Amino acid sequence: MERISIIEKLGLFSEAWSPRVIGECNGQHVKLARLDGEFVWHAHEHEDELFLVVEGEIEIQFRDRVVELREGELCIVPRGVEHRPVARRPASVLLFEPASTVNTGDADDARRIDPQRLGRV
Amino acid sequence: MERISIIEKLGLFSEAWSPRVIGECNGQHVKLARLDGEFVWHAHEHEDELFLVVEGEIEIQFRDRVVELREGELCIVPRGVEHRPVARRPASVLLFEPASTVNTGDADDARRIDPQRLGRV
Repeated sequence: MERISIIEKLGLFSEAWSPRVIGECNGQHVKLARLDGEFVWHAHEHEDELFLVVEGEIEIQFRDRVVELREGELCIVPRGVEHRPVARRPASVLLFEPASTVNTGDADDARRIDPQRLGRV
Repeated sequence: MERISIIEKLGLFSEAWSPRVIGECNGQHVKLARLDGEFVWHAHEHEDELFLVVEGEIEIQFRDRVVELREGELCIVPRGVEHRPVARRPASVLLFEPASTVNTGDADDARRIDPQRLGRV
């Protein structure tokens, strides 16, 4: 029951591809992440994932299409669907997803972070 | 798997206290709502509720405090906690809450909307 400022929270970390938890709601995590460049193709078997752009612009690449998102735009990626987030320039997103979600999904990638080790800001 | 623009969706309705569903994610609804004036004191027995201000500013009143939120700021109201959203001037919020959530919670109020009858935009 406190005010959470997205801009203030973004000021507390600078690493790309390292989501930080800013709140919890019905078993879901509310996270902020900085994106820079191309992430790995992956899917989340059991989790839908919401991306809301808060700074800059990103692409969410699917195998059959690309969704381009600017500030104030969101996309919900259904569970099981392969996708790859790409930021041509540094961008920031708010994520809503179950607390169990692994950032790299089913992919083998060095940027994998155990959800229990996610930082909080 | 489409681009959803908050501003475009807000342009599709004008009524205050009448949330519209813009997406679903892990059994949660993503909604937009316009607020204008004082809502009713209420609690949601089983649902946490996230308010993210996208236009203007609001207060979330609790029995022991007031949380003031401006654009880009959010507050998560835990289940069972009495609260009252107030907008001194018209404002808009993004809500994230289970699809079962009744807008007026446990309160008896004419602005109650059956969650199965919520509009979509």
